[in-house]
Formats: sequence, structure tokens, C-alpha cells
Amino acid sequence: MIAPVLREEIARRYGTPAVVIDLDRVERNIARLQAACDAAGLANRPHIKTHKSPVLARMQIAAGARGVTCQKIGEAEVMAAAGIDDILVSYNLVGPHAVGRLGRLLRESPARLTVAADNPVTVAGLEEAARAGGRTLDVVVECDTGRKRAGVETPGEAVALARDIASRPGLAFAGLLLYPPAGDAAGAQTFLDEAKAGLAALGLEPRIVSTGGTPNLPELGQIRGATEHRAGTVIFNDRMMMAAGVATLEECALAVLARVVSRAGPERGILDAGSKTLTSDTGGGLDGFGLLPDHPGARIHAFAEEHGFLDLSACADRPAVGTLVEVVPNHVCVVVNMVDTLVTVRGGAIVGTLPVAARGMIA
Amino acid sequence: MIAPVLREEIARRYGTPAVVIDLDRVERNIARLQAACDAAGLANRPHIKTHKSPVLARMQIAAGARGVTCQKIGEAEVMAAAGIDDILVSYNLVGPHAVGRLGRLLRESPARLTVAADNPVTVAGLEEAARAGGRTLDVVVECDTGRKRAGVETPGEAVALARDIASRPGLAFAGLLLYPPAGDAAGAQTFLDEAKAGLAALGLEPRIVSTGGTPNLPELGQIRGATEHRAGTVIFNDRMMMAAGVATLEECALAVLARVVSRAGPERGILDAGSKTLTSDTGGGLDGFGLLPDHPGARIHAFAEEHGFLDLSACADRPAVGTLVEVVPNHVCVVVNMVDTLVTVRGGAIVGTLPVAARGMIA
Repeated sequence: MIAPVLREEIARRYGTPAVVIDLDRVERNIARLQAACDAAGLANRPHIKTHKSPVLARMQIAAGARGVTCQKIGEAEVMAAAGIDDILVSYNLVGPHAVGRLGRLLRESPARLTVAADNPVTVAGLEEAARAGGRTLDVVVECDTGRKRAGVETPGEAVALARDIASRPGLAFAGLLLYPPAGDAAGAQTFLDEAKAGLAALGLEPRIVSTGGTPNLPELGQIRGATEHRAGTVIFNDRMMMAAGVATLEECALAVLARVVSRAGPERGILDAGSKTLTSDTGGGLDGFGLLPDHPGARIHAFAEEHGFLDLSACADRPAVGTLVEVVPNHVCVVVNMVDTLVTVRGGAIVGTLPVAARGMIA
Repeated sequence: MIAPVLREEIARRYGTPAVVIDLDRVERNIARLQAACDAAGLANRPHIKTHKSPVLARMQIAAGARGVTCQKIGEAEVMAAAGIDDILVSYNLVGPHAVGRLGRLLRESPARLTVAADNPVTVAGLEEAARAGGRTLDVVVECDTGRKRAGVETPGEAVALARDIASRPGLAFAGLLLYPPAGDAAGAQTFLDEAKAGLAALGLEPRIVSTGGTPNLPELGQIRGATEHRAGTVIFNDRMMMAAGVATLEECALAVLARVVSRAGPERGILDAGSKTLTSDTGGGLDGFGLLPDHPGARIHAFAEEHGFLDLSACADRPAVGTLVEVVPNHVCVVVNMVDTLVTVRGGAIVGTLPVAARGMIA
């Protein structure tokens, strides 16, 4: 992704390891996601957890996205402060701190805010936030159609929670939020149809049916009744998306530029990027901790915090100390979250840097 | 570690997840490390990669530490700016950016600086930094006695690199840096004795013989000729140190305060701390991603970025949505690096926050 001559210039200017994005590739990925949503008749609501940058969020909106998705209240605050005016928080916000911040955001920001809930404790807090915020809050019910993460497990529970939401002053039942397991649009459809029937019996209708996930993009449009899609990783892609068959190496728009800083043994090397840069994320069980496109035989087999341990035994072209190498991370969303700035390149030249404004917004 | 009444107050004030340290425990750990070094007749040079805080570094120095150890030039800059006056960088600093920053630090800071190298490319860069810095730079040769991370693999190579260092204007050969595998003081001793004999034949003597690692503390003093020890993790300890038998739960001074935000299934729960807080570090193959002392049957079996997936099937007391839980991380050094501030408590009360000043200093 980064031409060799550019590598030296990035390394000289910003040091290594550096997290680099190619803006041409980013723009192509943004356009491709928008086109896929358009073709499926779905609103595009990209998840900003991947880039955590209002600048990139604005590029997504300029390309046609309806709004953005955030995971934590801190991310929503950063996006709202940057003028993003339609924000979905796809996460159970629980506890007085998160509820207080949501109330303030409702009061102080003109942004349209929608939040998810999968249980009555969350809903009770959202009611409090809406009261403090002085305006009605749209709430979607998070539904689990088999992935076993957050979300009510049955259509009946979804309907019951929707009724709870609709009964509370200050809250409006806005719809359903799903993150179907990849390849199981049919299971999501069954859940959705049953939930919609139950809702209809109560006079409720899901204005929003939000689906999610970059791995689900190939099935976009297969769930009848879906209204919007949330995809995060696709803006940059990574080794995990390549393994899932939803991205090519040429569609990976982010790479970590690292330097070989030790070659203590003939078959071993050490990169200056360890678990504090590339993270210990295995990408769901991938072999090694990143892909080295220029050294296909090299394998990052383990990490210390600032060491990436290279097994070079199967590597024809073993990089010497000082060599700059490009690493496509296993999981790009967690790598972006390690750094305060991304280095941006375009057309073989450095553009500058982009702050990761919502980095570390875990609360 | 955190009394239940304090948990609510921390969560209200700072939100969850929050990374909390108990200053009483921190001080006990600092004192214990210092006493161990004193008893072994070794200078104490704690590694700040664990806490990344000049405030905590100063506490370590006030307790008797000779100076600090850093892994990256950015960490050294933060410590030098805070007035720490004796800094060892135990890492191969390679490339024009790192070399340039080291040269500036030598020129602008009065701190005593020592750096490690395991190869001639690093040494050549250090010579350049010393020239730019206008003063002599002490260099130690990093030696690998079996751990297979950085470091020359044989005493002969160590001697050859020491000669290279000693021959360069602006560089002074200062000694040897080791990080022996735990339990192999004997192997380190053999390497060290051979290297010292080779050095003596050249008229060189290692003023510094630096050993490292919290897991090696039980063997402190067993390597004849060692002059100082670098230990990082011991200031906080973690599940990995407990598994290594070098810390008890009561010696763990850091916990992540997290909240149960979903209980979608009877045997499942979700914490608001995922891989962007606790990290995917397995602590060298531990089962699960953290210890829940109050819910010993609960297991964090997987992560999404902001979800910690709890398996509660073996948990007698299954926490409801809203419950605050304490998590002792697998590996504390990488968790500290995820946040910009630590919450500090002492004697059952909140003290305040401490900035993680060198967070994200990967270059």
C-alpha cells in the first residue's frame, strides 16, 4: 500500500511504528459501501468505532450516509461536537454517569439521537436521560438472532421491551437493531417477522430496522423489512475481513509501517511494533498477528509490548535491521484505537495526519 | 480491592469502565521491590512501561530507585521532561526519527541516558545521536540468554559488539543488559561469565550488568556480577504475575471497574469492558480475559471491542444488569496503555486521577 520511497519519508517524519491510511483507498471503500446500501435500498449508517474520526465520518456522510453509529457515549459526544447530526448509539448505556452524559447531550446538542437497549434497567436509565434532556429519545430494541452478544433472545422479549419503552414518558419506540451472524439472513428474517407481528398486535411499528456488520455486506438486501445498515470495518478493511472473503488486499486502506530493529538469530527478526501497536487480537483465530505483503513468508508469531517477533524461517527475502515493512493488521478497529493520530497518504505522497479524536472513549 | 460503596462513587464520577489503582497497595509494591533489590545488593531501575506515569516514577525514586527504564524514546522524553535524571532505554532505537529524538534529548536534557543495542546498525545510529547531542552516550549490549527476544545470542557476539561500541567516538561501552528466562539464573550466569572474560581480554569491563523482569524477582541476587534490576509489572501486578507465583491477589494494585450492561441469557452476561479496555492479551495462555474476585465462577470467555462476554454457567451469584464488578486484568501493562487517566483510591476513598502521560508512546 505504501510505496518504498514513501515509507522512508513517513518513518523520518513521524517515526515508526506509524498507522497509515491511504485516502484513495478509503474513499473507494466509502463509495463501495454507499453503493451497496443504495443498491439494497438501505440507509447507510457506518459505525465510527473503526476510525473514531469526525473527519472520516463527514466524508461518509458527504458520500451519502444517513448518519453514524457509535458504541459508547464518549464517541457520540465527539461526533456531535463535530456537527454530525444523526447518531445511533448501538449499546446499552447503563449507570448514572452514562445516563447523565446522555441527558446533557440531548439537552445541548441538536443532533438526532437514537439509542439501543436490550433490558428494562437500560430503558429506565434512558427515561431518566430523556427527562434530563428535555426531549423525546428514540429507542431501538437490540435483538440477538444467534450471535450471542447483546440483544434479547426471542421475538417475544423484543415485543415486551418495545411495550415497556413505548409506555415510558419521554421515550419513543423507534424500531429494532440486529447484528445477524454472517450467512444467517434467514434466521434474522424469522426473528424479525415474528417480532413485527407481535408489535403490530400492540399497534407498534418498527420505523427503523437496523442491521450491522461488514461481514454481512454480501447479504445486504436479503432481510425484508430492514431499513438501514451499520458497517464499520469496511472503511479500512483488514486481515480478518480478507479471511471472511469480504475484502481483498487492495481494498485494505490501513497499514502499520514498522521497522526491523533486531535480527538476533538468522531465522528471527523483531519489529518495533508489538502488542501496544498491533494488539493481541487474533482476528478470530488467524495464524499470527498481521500480514506482511512484501514478505509473504514472514510470520509475526508472538508479541512483547513493543516487540513483534518475526519467524523468518520460511522467508526467502529476510529483511535486515533497519528495513521498513508494511503490516496489514488482523483487526483494524483495535489498532486505530492505540494511536492518537493516523498518517494519511494519497497518490504516493504524504498528505498529513488525522487525529483519532474518539480514541480511548471507553465510557 | 475496591470497596462496594466506593465502586458506586467511582462509577458515578468517572464512568465505567475505569482503570483504578490503590495507592496503598502501589506503595507497598514499590517498597517491596526496593527492599528486594536492597537485599540483593542491586540498584533498582523500575521499568515505567507498566505505569507510564512520571508521578509514579518519582514515587519509585523517592523509595530508593536509582533511575528508570523506558522502552521507547517517547517514554524517555516524558520521563526526562518530568525531571527524572537517570534513564535507561532498553530497546534498539533504529532509524532517523528515533536517532534524531535521542540526539535532541541528549542535547536538551541534563538526564543521564543509557541505551541498549544488539546490532551494529543500532550502534551506528547511536553514534550519530551522540554526535548531535554533543555528549558521550553510554551503551549497554543487550544479551539473550534463552528468551529469544532481542539480544545477541552468544557471549562472543556480545564482546564483538562491545568492541564496536568502544571504538566509536561519542559512545562508551557501559555494560550488559539481560532478561533471563524465569528460573534460568544459571544460564544467564554462564553467558555473563564468558562475556566478562572476553571483555576483560579487550580491557573492557561492564560497569552495568542489568537484569530484568518481575517474574525473576524470586531469583534476585543469584546472578554474580549483576549490578541492577529492571522490573515493571510488580508496581501493580496482575493475573499473569499471580499465575507465575510472584504476586498474590492482595498484591494486585490495579483493577478495572466494569458494569454488567446486559444479561440476555440466563447463563450469559456482558460487561462494558471489552478488548478496547482489557485487551486481548491472554497473559501467556491464561483461561479467559481477567479475574473477577467477587464472582469466582464467572469467566470472561471472549470480547467484542466494547463487550466483555461473561460465561456465568458456573457462577453461583450471577450479577444482574447494573452490577459493578472488579476485574483483575491478565496483563496490566497493556491495560494501562489503553486509558489516558488512572483513577486513584486510598484507604477506601477516592483520591483523584493520574494522567498516563506516556500512553501510546510507541515511537
